[in-house]
This record gives sequence, C-alpha cells and structure tokens, in this order.
Amino acid sequence: MKVIRDIKQMSLACQRLRRKGKSIGFVPTMGALHAGHLSLVKEAGRVNDIVVVSIFVNPMQFAPQEDFRRYPRPIKKDIALCRKSGVDFVFYPDAVAMYPEGFQTSVAVERLSRVLCGKSRPRHFRGVTTVVAKLFNVIQPEVAYFGQKDAQQAIIIQRMSADLNFPLRIKIMPTIREKDGLAISSRNIYLSRQERKEALVLSQSLDLAKGLIKNGIKDAHKIIAKMEQFIKSRKSASVDYISIVEAAGLKPVKKICGDCLIALAVWIGKTRLIDNAIIRNA
Amino acid sequence: MKVIRDIKQMSLACQRLRRKGKSIGFVPTMGALHAGHLSLVKEAGRVNDIVVVSIFVNPMQFAPQEDFRRYPRPIKKDIALCRKSGVDFVFYPDAVAMYPEGFQTSVAVERLSRVLCGKSRPRHFRGVTTVVAKLFNVIQPEVAYFGQKDAQQAIIIQRMSADLNFPLRIKIMPTIREKDGLAISSRNIYLSRQERKEALVLSQSLDLAKGLIKNGIKDAHKIIAKMEQFIKSRKSASVDYISIVEAAGLKPVKKICGDCLIALAVWIGKTRLIDNAIIRNA
Repeated sequence: MKVIRDIKQMSLACQRLRRKGKSIGFVPTMGALHAGHLSLVKEAGRVNDIVVVSIFVNPMQFAPQEDFRRYPRPIKKDIALCRKSGVDFVFYPDAVAMYPEGFQTSVAVERLSRVLCGKSRPRHFRGVTTVVAKLFNVIQPEVAYFGQKDAQQAIIIQRMSADLNFPLRIKIMPTIREKDGLAISSRNIYLSRQERKEALVLSQSLDLAKGLIKNGIKDAHKIIAKMEQFIKSRKSASVDYISIVEAAGLKPVKKICGDCLIALAVWIGKTRLIDNAIIRNA
Repeated sequence: MKVIRDIKQMSLACQRLRRKGKSIGFVPTMGALHAGHLSLVKEAGRVNDIVVVSIFVNPMQFAPQEDFRRYPRPIKKDIALCRKSGVDFVFYPDAVAMYPEGFQTSVAVERLSRVLCGKSRPRHFRGVTTVVAKLFNVIQPEVAYFGQKDAQQAIIIQRMSADLNFPLRIKIMPTIREKDGLAISSRNIYLSRQERKEALVLSQSLDLAKGLIKNGIKDAHKIIAKMEQFIKSRKSASVDYISIVEAAGLKPVKKICGDCLIALAVWIGKTRLIDNAIIRNA
C-alpha cells in the first residue's frame, strides 16, 4: 500500500493504472475510519482492481462555528486500517495544496442542497461537491463509494456526477450500525457515556416512524410530531430537523407514498448527529 | 470524421482512445466556425493524435434578453469545415441531453467572473464554466484550446481547470483578425455594412492605447478616457466597458505596470463586440 500526499503524483499514478486497463474503486473519506467506511472499502475491493481511499478533512464543508478543528484525525490508525483492509493507495493531501492561494471555484447542486441539512448548514454541500469534484478529477475512478448514512450527500453527489457528466458510477452502501442501532459516525466519539445512551433516540425514532407507517399512519406531519415528542423525552437531545421527503427529489411530502426518506438531525449535547431511513413503495 | 450527438457514445469513444494511448486535443465551440476556431483546430492537430471539436450553443451562458435564439447555427457548413480541417470527431449534443430535467449543478469561478464582461453579463461565466466542465468530463482531453479573443473566458477556464484538478492542459491561442484589424467573431455576421466599418473602433482604440503607452503614458484613467473619446466619435458605437487590469488576476490598475490586459466591450448598433490586448512588462 502506498500513501501519497502530492496531488500531481496521485493523479499520475491513477492515470498510469487506467492506461493499463485497471479499474479504480474510490472511497473518499475525512478519515477517523470506522466500520461504515470499511464496508465501502470492502465493496470497492470486491468489484475493482485497485482501491484508493482519500483522507482529507475538508475545510470548505465546515462553517466557522463548526467542528473542523476538533474533528478527529487519527491518521496513523487510519493508515493501519487501510493497510489491513487491502487498500492499494491512501491519498492524503494537505489543505494548502487542495485550496492554494487564489482558489475560487465552487461546484454547487442548487435545489437539493437547500433542504434538510442544507438549511442548518447553508454552505456545507457546496464544500462537499467541490471537494468531491476535485477528488474525482485526481483519481478518475470507475466507481466511487458513499454511505447511505449521509443520505442527502449521497443524492447530491449522484446529481452532481450526472449533471457534470463524470465518467464514473456512484455506489451507495447501507448504513452500518452499532449493535444497539446507533448509526456509526466519526462524530460518535464526541459523546459522553450518558449522551451515547441518549443518542439512540435517532434510530429509535426512525423505528417508531416505521412502526406507525406499518400500522397505516400516512400523515407525515403526525409521524414527525410523534418522533419529535419521543426525542424530546431525552434530556440531552434537541431536534435540529425531522423531515419526510421524496427519496429522489427531497421534496417534503404530506402523505407517505412511493419511496420516501425520513431524515433527521438531532443535537445530543454539543454533538449534531444525523440518521435516516428509506421507506420503499409506501 | 465522425459526427456524434449522443453524450454516452462520445464519452465511450474518447475513453477507448485514451485506453489505446491516444492523446486527444479538444476545441469546444458554439459553431459558426471561423478562422479563429480553425487556428485552434490546426494547433490541436499539430500536437495531438486525435482532434475533437464540440459544437454546442450553450443556453446556460445566455441571459434571457441576449442573442441565444438568433446566434448563427450553420451546422452543415461547420461540419464541412471540420472535415476539411482534419478533425476526427465532431461532438454535437443537443440541449435537452446536456441539461435534462432536474439538472441543477453549476460550476462557478467567483471573483474572476464578477469583473469586465461579468458585470454586464452576471451569470454568463457560470454558464461557460459549467458547460466546459461537462465537456471536459465527456471528452477527457489531454489539451483543450481556447482563443485569446475571449481573454476573460480564457483566464476563468484556466482557473477552473486548475482549481478542480482537471488532468489536462489549457492552451490559449492568439486572436485572429481580419486584414483591417477587426477581431474575428461569430457575431460579426450581425453587422450591417456601415456597422462593419465602425466596428473597427475596437481594435483601433486598442492600437491607440498601445501608442499612448509607447509614448510613456502610464495613467490607466487617462488612456481609458482617450479610448472612450475615440470610440464615441462613431455614430453606431456605444461603450459597454473599457478596463485596464492585471493580466493574471483581472484587478483594475491605476498605472500601467507589469503584465496588463486592456479589455473592452462595445455595442455596435445592437451587436456587442469584445476585444483586448495584452501589454507585457510595461
């Protein structure tokens, strides 16, 4: 396994591989790798000749008050995990090389970026799509892998990739959860023991919603109200948003119907966590 | 020579060529090909194994009141010219395929797009950079060619390509002029006989500026005033802007110094024409 920091060197290495007819599977990450990331790496290895993992805590997707500085960066552990998981290249650029002086280009997916998390984090997705476009150009993968845990991000990147005609496929892999149901996230590390327990309200409120839907309740407003009520029963939890939207266009629905996405963001103490569930053919 | 309309088919053809180790030179155009375009094609053929010309009048770079509908589209003549010039592929997509329903991604170069032509055409360059990013992804050229006539466009595309790490080179080729000095443009066709004569004020006012600089006048304001005065002497001419800016960052200069760009846009009747000159090491 090679760790490459230089952008040009990474780009040339990938071009060489492509010319040899090797297919590249790409897993972009911000490091702090966990079982979710590793499920993407595993799938990338199953399907492609070469697996590239990028590790880059992207400053452009954090607002000033957010946790950019505090975001975990266990780089040695990450590299060891990659090695153990059969990764071929770790691309680990630094921020000055990615955003040199004079940098001023952005890639934005307009409507899809304004809803859900985009409301509480107005420039977040613009940062995500810009860095992902850059990484796609450096790596030029055949397939790029993202997790369903970041449902809106997955949809936005699919849209960006199709709209800009990137010659690659996007594969979205299922959310990986702890045994008790908590969606695995690099930010779970921020939680105190008490908060860790209360963080279960995210997945549990989704289960609650699924139960209601199974019992024939279709009114989105009613379901959201029940979820909110449930989440509020936990001391450290405060709802950022709970939305039920069309799975494809992310437009709010009044009645559960077709493929819907139930997405929520909840503050557990000072940690903002997200989770979601897709309801198919409701 | 092949004419390809389908995006996927064009993308696969280019991928096949790349895998065979062929270098692709790419000339993106809006058609209505003239000697300026053909100089790009010639240079592309000199340096690369394969030459691809795209012909696409890009709706995204026109404002509603601009000349999108009226823009010349002599497609048969363009294809014949490409064939005669040794082009290998003409990529001629249609607008619905380029901007399908749900399309909502844009690529923007922030500061450089706000000055000069960007002031009078606020969303123009966003349209240009978006379509060029799309075309780069479809064609994946080694080198892409643009004309110095659209000086700001050239600088913005270089910035976009570097910022987004496109694995290609941008080559800017000199402005091609009629014998009397008029910069060749697809829009010259709009000019009446009288306007065609008066359109010479653009290149002549640039010559005037160069003369003043040669004679030691360095005050940008004074040079611009002289140019404006000269242009106003023609009945059909009205100045959109005249600017003297740093050639790299497009920031206005007070005194001619280093590499400067003198750029102007002038309405000749109902036709907006542009021209520019670079002053090196002033």
